[in-house]
Amino acid sequence: MLVSALLMSVGINSCLCVLFFILYSVLRKQPHNYEVFLPRRLAAGTSKRRRNKVARYIPSVRWIWKSWRPSEKELMESSGLDGVVFMRMITFSLKVFLFAGIIGIFVILPVNCFGDQIIQIDYADWSANSLDIFSVANLKINSPWLWVHFGAIYLVTAYICCLLYFEFRYIGLKRIEHFHSSKPQPHQFTILVRNIPSSDGSSVSDSVDRFFTENHFSTYLSHVVIHRTSKVRSIVDRAKKLYKQAKRKKPDPHQVKRTPMRFFSRKDTPEGHYEKVLQELEHNIRLGQAEVSSPGKEVRAAFVSFKSRYGGAMALHMPQSINPTYWLTEPAPEPHDVHWPFFSASFMQKWLAKIVIVFACLLLTILFLIPVVLVQGLTNLPALEFVFPFLTLILSMKIVSQIITGYLPSLILQTSLKIVPPIMEFLSSIQGHICHSEIQKSACNKVIWFTIWNVFFATVFSGSAFSKLSVILDPKEIPVKLAVAVPAQASFFIAYVVTTGWTDTLTELFRVVPFMVSYVKRSLEPSDDNELDIPAMRYHRDTPRVLFFGLLGITYFFLAPLILPFILLYFCLAYIIYRNQFINVYEPKYETGGMFWPMIHYTMIFSLVLMQAIAIGLFALKKMELATYLLVPLPVFTLLFNEFCRKRFMPIFTAYPAEVLTKRDREDRHDPRMAEFYDKLVTAYQDPALLPLRFSGSRNDSLTSPLLSSNEV
Amino acid sequence: MLVSALLMSVGINSCLCVLFFILYSVLRKQPHNYEVFLPRRLAAGTSKRRRNKVARYIPSVRWIWKSWRPSEKELMESSGLDGVVFMRMITFSLKVFLFAGIIGIFVILPVNCFGDQIIQIDYADWSANSLDIFSVANLKINSPWLWVHFGAIYLVTAYICCLLYFEFRYIGLKRIEHFHSSKPQPHQFTILVRNIPSSDGSSVSDSVDRFFTENHFSTYLSHVVIHRTSKVRSIVDRAKKLYKQAKRKKPDPHQVKRTPMRFFSRKDTPEGHYEKVLQELEHNIRLGQAEVSSPGKEVRAAFVSFKSRYGGAMALHMPQSINPTYWLTEPAPEPHDVHWPFFSASFMQKWLAKIVIVFACLLLTILFLIPVVLVQGLTNLPALEFVFPFLTLILSMKIVSQIITGYLPSLILQTSLKIVPPIMEFLSSIQGHICHSEIQKSACNKVIWFTIWNVFFATVFSGSAFSKLSVILDPKEIPVKLAVAVPAQASFFIAYVVTTGWTDTLTELFRVVPFMVSYVKRSLEPSDDNELDIPAMRYHRDTPRVLFFGLLGITYFFLAPLILPFILLYFCLAYIIYRNQFINVYEPKYETGGMFWPMIHYTMIFSLVLMQAIAIGLFALKKMELATYLLVPLPVFTLLFNEFCRKRFMPIFTAYPAEVLTKRDREDRHDPRMAEFYDKLVTAYQDPALLPLRFSGSRNDSLTSPLLSSNEV
Repeated sequence: MLVSALLMSVGINSCLCVLFFILYSVLRKQPHNYEVFLPRRLAAGTSKRRRNKVARYIPSVRWIWKSWRPSEKELMESSGLDGVVFMRMITFSLKVFLFAGIIGIFVILPVNCFGDQIIQIDYADWSANSLDIFSVANLKINSPWLWVHFGAIYLVTAYICCLLYFEFRYIGLKRIEHFHSSKPQPHQFTILVRNIPSSDGSSVSDSVDRFFTENHFSTYLSHVVIHRTSKVRSIVDRAKKLYKQAKRKKPDPHQVKRTPMRFFSRKDTPEGHYEKVLQELEHNIRLGQAEVSSPGKEVRAAFVSFKSRYGGAMALHMPQSINPTYWLTEPAPEPHDVHWPFFSASFMQKWLAKIVIVFACLLLTILFLIPVVLVQGLTNLPALEFVFPFLTLILSMKIVSQIITGYLPSLILQTSLKIVPPIMEFLSSIQGHICHSEIQKSACNKVIWFTIWNVFFATVFSGSAFSKLSVILDPKEIPVKLAVAVPAQASFFIAYVVTTGWTDTLTELFRVVPFMVSYVKRSLEPSDDNELDIPAMRYHRDTPRVLFFGLLGITYFFLAPLILPFILLYFCLAYIIYRNQFINVYEPKYETGGMFWPMIHYTMIFSLVLMQAIAIGLFALKKMELATYLLVPLPVFTLLFNEFCRKRFMPIFTAYPAEVLTKRDREDRHDPRMAEFYDKLVTAYQDPALLPLRFSGSRNDSLTSPLLSSNEV
Repeated sequence: MLVSALLMSVGINSCLCVLFFILYSVLRKQPHNYEVFLPRRLAAGTSKRRRNKVARYIPSVRWIWKSWRPSEKELMESSGLDGVVFMRMITFSLKVFLFAGIIGIFVILPVNCFGDQIIQIDYADWSANSLDIFSVANLKINSPWLWVHFGAIYLVTAYICCLLYFEFRYIGLKRIEHFHSSKPQPHQFTILVRNIPSSDGSSVSDSVDRFFTENHFSTYLSHVVIHRTSKVRSIVDRAKKLYKQAKRKKPDPHQVKRTPMRFFSRKDTPEGHYEKVLQELEHNIRLGQAEVSSPGKEVRAAFVSFKSRYGGAMALHMPQSINPTYWLTEPAPEPHDVHWPFFSASFMQKWLAKIVIVFACLLLTILFLIPVVLVQGLTNLPALEFVFPFLTLILSMKIVSQIITGYLPSLILQTSLKIVPPIMEFLSSIQGHICHSEIQKSACNKVIWFTIWNVFFATVFSGSAFSKLSVILDPKEIPVKLAVAVPAQASFFIAYVVTTGWTDTLTELFRVVPFMVSYVKRSLEPSDDNELDIPAMRYHRDTPRVLFFGLLGITYFFLAPLILPFILLYFCLAYIIYRNQFINVYEPKYETGGMFWPMIHYTMIFSLVLMQAIAIGLFALKKMELATYLLVPLPVFTLLFNEFCRKRFMPIFTAYPAEVLTKRDREDRHDPRMAEFYDKLVTAYQDPALLPLRFSGSRNDSLTSPLLSSNEV
């Protein structure tokens, strides 16, 4: 790639960015776009629907200022600790690439450029030079200038490790602080018990009662046994959908009074029909609820609540039974976070499901490229012409053929990458996780490795998937192979950051899909007053994306330091845009308490070790034997540092320590509201499908609350 | 190796076995050997010192019957669960090799011999045949008879896995049973807390008190802070030694009365000298004790005792502090099992020590052979003649040169292997374990891998240590390389079992070193009445040895089934001999509660997977593609089975479940003796070096009890 090509790409994309920023500032001010760009503020009522008509069309940058302004504490209040962790991932990357950028641009880049160079620089026309003159490939074998790179690697590793340590500690403390400042919540007092052994005759409920009264007498409070409710749930869902439909079709009473005829003339389904079907469904639901609630139909799992957080933690941590596969305990999720469908798994089922899913993910990750490459193969012109003969004329046009051969393959790859997060989420959901946040965490992890493998390694070792596998099976050769392949792709990844990276953030800002959906909906049914659906941040989609650019930056910082300013710009964009989205768009649906950080930490460590492996290979290739041997301890120390961090901080993320729990319990002891809380706690984990429902004859609007008050019509 | 050579070796070694059995039966009846062969019975007083003079010299096999007879329950009572686990390892191997032996001898051996053979059998003179005719090497490429081996591999794997499952379950239940039947013991109520944070001003003792009263109010009983007592301990040890010496030199009062002159005439050190030195030491000890007991001199660790087992377990399992490196809890060992010297390690020190030791062990394991091979190199005749020219005459004799070249190298290897268990024990002891049993467990683990690497792999891949390392770095090639190398060493390992295996058990029976030591002592000081020192079983020395023969049997059962009868015989010998030793020689010093079993289980699984890897390589070499692919799932399933066992049984071995603890606590609740037990519990974990001692002027015999009653002379 030539400097001129890069400059053009940067120019085009910068213009696009500015253009879209301006466009966004206009679009978001249009009232009909509030649902897409400002749903949170709309729901909170802080957005004024009506506005000065002229001001609406004047572009402004005030939104940037507005999203810059809120402090971390405010962000914490509005988006929870998970939002803070996500933003800290970005600021962390900013700090890293500011430091690495200074070293890279002011030290390594000049060295690469003017050191023992291989390629002659064309001083007359800079833009005609290849990008390779800025990369380490430009240095001769055994060049003393390579010691600069050596020093930079040690320096940046040390800097990142320090930063990782302090960040991990900070987030751990935030987590504790968050717990301290939280109100008493049901999941703090509750654990989930699985695989309750079947004692002959007695019901699951009796078993639980007996076991916990016997073994945790002083702290046990109550329990809720879980039922297999998928059938009932499907009927409830159908009823809810139908009710929504009926409600939508039925205009509100005032309107009916004014235009009584229009209602019947426009819709040919009479109101009575809905009423009848709903009544029938309601009856079915009641029957189903009675059936699943009958003894013997229970799942061998229960939510067990305790009188104190300490009591809950005690039961959680202690092995319960002589047979360790019985009475398995795990922390309970927040009640609205529970993923009800997958409660039926026994110990063995859950374990086997996990193994199968892990294998499936591995296969998907490793073999994903094969179908994509096949489909991409179709985009070469002769193949296309063969399959669609009528296209011959169009394809013979130069610009069309250029677009097809140039953009289509990468478009196919990018589009197919977009479907990966939902697939991984689905796979995680059938793995036996009990709550949505766990599913998302697990999916996030899968997507991270998927992205690293399928974007980084697949590009680096471009060839068949099996040849990539053979690299793994020959561990000795990995560093050298990496050192050959990775620098060769430097210009590709620089372009990748500028194009895919920057546009990714713009797509996020514009919320392209919801924007289009809302536009289509509005044009089809302009007056439809849908209830507002505030989306939740999909961490499993965005975290891997951001982390991947971190990986690119870390691995390429000494190979091709030219990538650093673009990465830095990417993170600046991401910082502004994600803050904006947190404030205006996404609402937290549940709280993992910063559980995404360890994943981020491990990915950073992986990036570091990868970078070091490449460095070792590179120094070996450049015949710098001493430097090669001196670099070998670096990954060892990095891994030891990681192990230390794991020992030092991970326990805070897996469970709250006794110290914290007893402190909170002491504070609650004299709180008069606790009696009321305990009453609520007893029923907090009722399956929503088993709660009494009433649709027919109701006109209650709040469909999100499943318990509808009795016939008010 | 020819059949005749094997027959000769078997003949010689069988005769040796019978001879030594007879010799042993005579030697053990000699009263002056009681201390070597029957110390337990001597201590228990069940051995009659005086006997019919003639019967003493008549060989008998009654001892075999006697060691055969005791039931497992009796063994449990006399040697603890660890003894039972050791014996069950042997019976487990017996079961495995009985089954594998039947298949091997009656199915695989005939197939190897008469199938598609490569080597022509010399029917006229069987003994002139090579042993290879019995091995799988005798089958042609792509021979259909290989499917018999295929079936046998699946069958034996399934059988061993079943057996492993039931054995793990059985030992887990035994462990629980053992806990149920035990009296209340201090270590059940106590945990060790490390890394107590230093809060400004207050002593460690106060910190512990405050922390546990705050966080475990309902169950906390008391604590003992640990002091750095290595200095005092060394003085105490010196004093004890001196006291012993003085006591030995001072004849008992009756004797003094009879021959008052002899005492002073024989020994020129007057009694008063000892008395004076002892008094001085006592003074020093008291000073030292006062010094280390003073505040500020404590180690930041303490034994914390609780009112119930449940309370102890609760504090053990729960994470304690916001900083997870503080207030680290671990189960307390039995008070007499505590390894006092290594209490000073902080979290970081302990962790780093562990890493360093693991590296050291790895290095020792991998590079051990280099010095041994160098020393062995000296045993070739020209080298010897060059170093010791005066030996030329002796070395020119044929028999001497044969012995030197034939036996000396293997003798050097065997002798240097003997020093490995103590080295590993030493390394484990500086790793930061808190008790002797942990040290032994950790050493056992190290010795197992050491033996497998340095005897199995070193023999199989005879060559330099570095070429062995390169095998690991090329994982794809491992099965094929194994399949080439392992069968080639079949006759060596058959001979190894017959020679080293059988003689190992005889060495154990004869306790060669203690026997020689006692003989030398007796001849130097015939009348010396040493106090009886009952040895403890060195599990870290014997378990790996027995397990290694299991590994040999499992890996070779289909390659060279001829090994099986000899292995079976080895285990029969081991069964009789170790039972005999448990009954007559070894006394348990502490109880790990069957913690050696998981190690045995994992080694068996390793042997299985190794066998399967060899099989895969072999089938690939024999060009049986279908069989090769069909074998690949086998190691995967074996590892999954292992993972299942780990999940299913390991929790029982790491901690006792709540169910069991509360049951024992309930039983104790109304026991009137508990008050007395609690009194003892408070001081159970006093450092013995800090207990008041009095030597001077005492004539008390029981030196093992450090608290000697006041001057009784």
